[in-house]
Amino acid sequence: MLENKEPKKTSLEALGEFGLIDHLTQSFQLRQPSSLQGVGDDAAVLDFGGKKTVVSTDMLVEGVHFDLAYVPLKHLGYKSVMVNLSDIYAMNAVATQITISIAISNRFPLEAIEEFYEGVALACKLYNVDLVGGDTTSSTRGMIISVTALGAADEDALVYRHGAKPNDLLVVSGDLGGAYMGLQVLEREKEVFKVNPNSQPDLEPYAYIVERQLKPEARKDIVALLKNLEVQPTAMIDISDGLSSEILHLCKNSKVGCNVYEDKIPLDPMVISSCEEFQLDSTLVAMSGGEDYELLFTIDQREFPKIKGNPNLTVVGHMTEASEGAFLISRNNSKIPITAQGWNSFDQA
Amino acid sequence: MLENKEPKKTSLEALGEFGLIDHLTQSFQLRQPSSLQGVGDDAAVLDFGGKKTVVSTDMLVEGVHFDLAYVPLKHLGYKSVMVNLSDIYAMNAVATQITISIAISNRFPLEAIEEFYEGVALACKLYNVDLVGGDTTSSTRGMIISVTALGAADEDALVYRHGAKPNDLLVVSGDLGGAYMGLQVLEREKEVFKVNPNSQPDLEPYAYIVERQLKPEARKDIVALLKNLEVQPTAMIDISDGLSSEILHLCKNSKVGCNVYEDKIPLDPMVISSCEEFQLDSTLVAMSGGEDYELLFTIDQREFPKIKGNPNLTVVGHMTEASEGAFLISRNNSKIPITAQGWNSFDQA
Repeated sequence: MLENKEPKKTSLEALGEFGLIDHLTQSFQLRQPSSLQGVGDDAAVLDFGGKKTVVSTDMLVEGVHFDLAYVPLKHLGYKSVMVNLSDIYAMNAVATQITISIAISNRFPLEAIEEFYEGVALACKLYNVDLVGGDTTSSTRGMIISVTALGAADEDALVYRHGAKPNDLLVVSGDLGGAYMGLQVLEREKEVFKVNPNSQPDLEPYAYIVERQLKPEARKDIVALLKNLEVQPTAMIDISDGLSSEILHLCKNSKVGCNVYEDKIPLDPMVISSCEEFQLDSTLVAMSGGEDYELLFTIDQREFPKIKGNPNLTVVGHMTEASEGAFLISRNNSKIPITAQGWNSFDQA
Repeated sequence: MLENKEPKKTSLEALGEFGLIDHLTQSFQLRQPSSLQGVGDDAAVLDFGGKKTVVSTDMLVEGVHFDLAYVPLKHLGYKSVMVNLSDIYAMNAVATQITISIAISNRFPLEAIEEFYEGVALACKLYNVDLVGGDTTSSTRGMIISVTALGAADEDALVYRHGAKPNDLLVVSGDLGGAYMGLQVLEREKEVFKVNPNSQPDLEPYAYIVERQLKPEARKDIVALLKNLEVQPTAMIDISDGLSSEILHLCKNSKVGCNVYEDKIPLDPMVISSCEEFQLDSTLVAMSGGEDYELLFTIDQREFPKIKGNPNLTVVGHMTEASEGAFLISRNNSKIPITAQGWNSFDQA
């Protein structure tokens, strides 16, 4: 990942904006019946028939959301799509199309942008979504990515952030904190590389958490699983900014409180061991780390038998009356108020 | 515009990302029946019933697409929406929703972003579109804006870039070259201001062209006019990069050629006089200037009586067989091949 390559470089001026869009998107096929017209006209044309259309958008900025010192561009393309699909799945919808715009400085050769689009193409293929539009332009500095994702769902399948009721169970998919710990490992390697550019990082022992950071997967499978299990969540959100922040969103939007149990928070063994190595508190990492792109949702208690024992899902707490507030119940049984320590990009620039 | 003000400044850190989105979008109302859920969940939810959904996206980068030395932020917000709505109208569709993402460095106080959103709100109100989503994040430098616009149309109303036939008439709305000449005036005033910061620019004599640059209007009215006149264009595109570039897009996508008559190109008297002042060729400015956001479309010759004499529409040429090529027929009757001298943002950074 940090190795020094001398790849082929084609300047972007040579292609121009239209040439670049054509070049980058010519290999994208339309897979969705709802995609009537993709890239190549003023706008894409979609047909969702009787379904509701779901739209979400996110922006990623070099130096704020990613560091090209250790993020391979292909992974970045993949992750940019995942971040947005995750929002669509958090509505319990099926993602169907994306548009992607990038602004890039001239220091990027064409091959770099192609690598980025390879990641986008792989994400589109694996998640069965169509790239239907976008814009490429120059920036005065760095790379900025903006993705808009569209999806469809039947009206009664849609799950909003509001809808959670007191006594509903709070459920999380997968495990938490991995993406944040992967970032710590990558940041450390970057510092080592700065001091000794000949060092070869050995990321293998950290493979799982590094992959959680560099190549996260949006939980399309969880939406399918819930459908199969015939579980209709009462409220749902994706975990992009950390469990604390997302819990507070659900509580605020649903006008409920919450008790979350520290000993229930799902952690991968590698997150626990790397937290020990970095002398970080694993609960704090899970609560505030962010970028896990798992789904957090609430279900009626009567639905519990349907999800009981499922290895993909963990009940981490239950909702309460709004007046009771939102708390983390620690292992020693003390009640700690949950505060939004979610990631705030404005602190960093 | 260039006056020195000392306005109130609130830092963005104080609000954080979620606070900022709430703050900026709380005054936006949903006006479209198709907007079921706007800002405030993982994704917006739209319902177009039996209509086709149209989606377009564009990115604007400070220092590349705009210069805050002379672009007021409110105008920039307005223009960012117009640029995208223009693409929706170019499909002969009705624009219904937008999402807007901005990345901004900490040098911008909250009040600056509010000003930008005032322009967005005004555009939404005047064009009857709903803001239904977005992202705000920090940038390491400058301001980057990404807008995605959605619209709806009946299938048989949609107009693509393909569809023009030989002998179809080529029609343009409004007049051309104004936005480019407005930019020349503003750039000149900026240079004067650099030399003498106490100078007060008098832009009044250039009001029309400066407004064409700073506050363009997307031609929603032309879509309505064509519907009223019962004219169904065979192909259509918006003029964002200059007439030459857009003509070549229509020719390429429709597999036709074209003859455009120099003496038919609609020019405002102020464009002509400012071209004289700046010693620029007005035809070249109209052909290559860009940012006019007029609509360029083709119609069957039999439709001509319906548009004849309409002050909003000008027939500038006709389509030919692809083998004949695309030409500008000059005032002295020489045939000049049309080349894409449209604006290429990669030349500038």
